[in-house]
Amino acid sequence: MLELKQVTIIGTGLLGASLALALRERGFGGRIVGVGRREKTLEEARGLGCFDGLTTSTAEALEEARGLPGGERHLAVLAAPLGHFKEIFGKVAVCDDPGLIITDVGSTKASVCALADELLPDATRFVGSHPMAGSEQQGPTAADAKLFEGKPCVVTPTGKTNDQAIQLVEALWEAVGMNVIEMEPNKHDRCVALVSHLPHAVASMLVKVVTEDGGDALAVASTGFASTTRIAAGDPALWVDIFQTNKDAVIDSVDKMMDELTRFKKVMARGDSGALKRLLDGAKQERDDWGTRRGEQG
Amino acid sequence: MLELKQVTIIGTGLLGASLALALRERGFGGRIVGVGRREKTLEEARGLGCFDGLTTSTAEALEEARGLPGGERHLAVLAAPLGHFKEIFGKVAVCDDPGLIITDVGSTKASVCALADELLPDATRFVGSHPMAGSEQQGPTAADAKLFEGKPCVVTPTGKTNDQAIQLVEALWEAVGMNVIEMEPNKHDRCVALVSHLPHAVASMLVKVVTEDGGDALAVASTGFASTTRIAAGDPALWVDIFQTNKDAVIDSVDKMMDELTRFKKVMARGDSGALKRLLDGAKQERDDWGTRRGEQG
Repeated sequence: MLELKQVTIIGTGLLGASLALALRERGFGGRIVGVGRREKTLEEARGLGCFDGLTTSTAEALEEARGLPGGERHLAVLAAPLGHFKEIFGKVAVCDDPGLIITDVGSTKASVCALADELLPDATRFVGSHPMAGSEQQGPTAADAKLFEGKPCVVTPTGKTNDQAIQLVEALWEAVGMNVIEMEPNKHDRCVALVSHLPHAVASMLVKVVTEDGGDALAVASTGFASTTRIAAGDPALWVDIFQTNKDAVIDSVDKMMDELTRFKKVMARGDSGALKRLLDGAKQERDDWGTRRGEQG
Repeated sequence: MLELKQVTIIGTGLLGASLALALRERGFGGRIVGVGRREKTLEEARGLGCFDGLTTSTAEALEEARGLPGGERHLAVLAAPLGHFKEIFGKVAVCDDPGLIITDVGSTKASVCALADELLPDATRFVGSHPMAGSEQQGPTAADAKLFEGKPCVVTPTGKTNDQAIQLVEALWEAVGMNVIEMEPNKHDRCVALVSHLPHAVASMLVKVVTEDGGDALAVASTGFASTTRIAAGDPALWVDIFQTNKDAVIDSVDKMMDELTRFKKVMARGDSGALKRLLDGAKQERDDWGTRRGEQG
């Protein structure tokens, strides 16, 4: 089990609050402190009953851990939107506790690792994380102790990351039921561009295609449209940050999608039912295999 | 309630078998006869306990209804893959029962209505239907009496369709809980190209983008990818028929999708976070509104 005197969760939205709930439910014995920007969010987080402390001050939350018993180990988790990371790293940098290990839950990693390098006095104690769990819902009231269970979490050490930091951060995610995968930050960003950012762009643009046509077709839209476009309901402000911090990989993935759509269109245009069948067969096979690996019901 | 002496369901796969189950469960008092091509499918359909008769002969199933009491009305529902419709219409055409009304469950309508016109001796007794319910599962063993409940069903009369046929077919779908929408066949096809066929093509091509990149990214794929690509697991043979019978509208919808992706890419490339936010905000708003209208949980 995870042994730490304190976990400081900076950002008590869906992910931060779910992490606190999950740790508490799985028997974590240390202190859990939440940092939020707005009193309303802190109030909602308080209602969950899993935080030992809640404050608007990052410095205060981090300093509180100093006097606690239970060894040196203290973990700070940045669970705020990516757009706030620069400011938060600046505040964390002021805390000179050598026992402090830092991670984050940001959806892109190369830019976050670069910020940590630039702003932290000792970046060897930072290791990026991307727990691949979420929901189109937001805020502490949507928190779910099972949000992370069975999902992948990418941890992105660089050549200079301290081994202890890696172990501690991986132990955190395993403690809430995640399957940890180590990956180099740039590779992570290319991979999530394909399986997360591109699907988000595609889902949003599918909605636009239909509504710009006048929206009449929505009257006959059903489960297929619902599932394909579900993630377009995600928080636009968060997604602007995600897209912008992974710009090149996202543009590249959109180009690949347009290449595939062009291929599909050519096969359609020449009425080649054999080639069309092979294209759909291939996609079905890969989707079925992946679904089986992740334990979907057949 | 629906008053008919017999419903003959030609094709006892997921949709046909679910229709039989749903009618029986909601107290339909007439005879339900299923026609299947393969003994194995008929055997599985028999196991559901909702068919009064099951046969491989369309002619036999239709003739059986002649001697039944309960008035003249007899309904045949083509629930086979679109690729078999020409052959089935040929068989139905031989039955000269003036009380026979005919509909289908095909995913495209203009080509089906044209076939009915060409092959039936009296096309005024045919009216096309598209119950917008389905699943990526197949066959009678996946049948579900609640499959149709609360879903839209498009009914596509033409100028010459008999009013009684329209009323009877609409009563059928209402009897199993569907919300009937009348639409002209060509308009139906343009609408489903946008909200059903394009999403299917997009889901399949998303899977291809990821697997052709080598598939490494699948290790970090999670709920967003799962939902966006779920329908790519649909039966490729069925989808080849659907795409081919709606070729022009599908190609047109793919072009519109590429236009939207190009717009997204341009906004990304120039790093215009305001325009990106507006694009995502618009898509979220439309998706949320549609979700609310169809009764999704917020």
